[in-house]
Amino acid sequence: MRLSDDAIRERLRSLDGWNYTEGKLEKHYRFSGFMDGVAFVNRVAEAAEAMNHHPDICLGYGYVTVSVWTHSEGGVTGKDFELARKCDEAAR
Amino acid sequence: MRLSDDAIRERLRSLDGWNYTEGKLEKHYRFSGFMDGVAFVNRVAEAAEAMNHHPDICLGYGYVTVSVWTHSEGGVTGKDFELARKCDEAAR
Repeated sequence: MRLSDDAIRERLRSLDGWNYTEGKLEKHYRFSGFMDGVAFVNRVAEAAEAMNHHPDICLGYGYVTVSVWTHSEGGVTGKDFELARKCDEAAR
Repeated sequence: MRLSDDAIRERLRSLDGWNYTEGKLEKHYRFSGFMDGVAFVNRVAEAAEAMNHHPDICLGYGYVTVSVWTHSEGGVTGKDFELARKCDEAAR
């Protein structure tokens, strides 16, 4: 179920570095090189595939940006917060 | 050395599906799922790391977009065309 803007902002307090923008949860991760970011993307991809819930990811030298939202609901759901937490675990 | 717009357009004729836009070479690849695209990103990353020339990559369910340009030259160089070809090889 799609969460309200208020519910999203409330839940965001329990996450570090995630923003709610243009209907999506988004976080910018920094890395020291390119392959560190690629390794992170692989960990995120495995978690996403296991959930059957897939983010959009942009990466380049020194950074990875992850965006999560639920296409079928047209917004952010509890599953997106679950994936956001798994991304943070993958970055540790 | 940064290539002229004319030289870039000439060289683009030998590539399939690459566009020259906003000072970068860019191609949109389609995949049947998420992990196919991730596997492609890993092959591109290995080629890029070996060249020490790193693209920007965006991926999501069913697609990967690769952008290449040379930061230090502020434009597109021969090295970018080399990386573009390696991306196409990685997609085969």
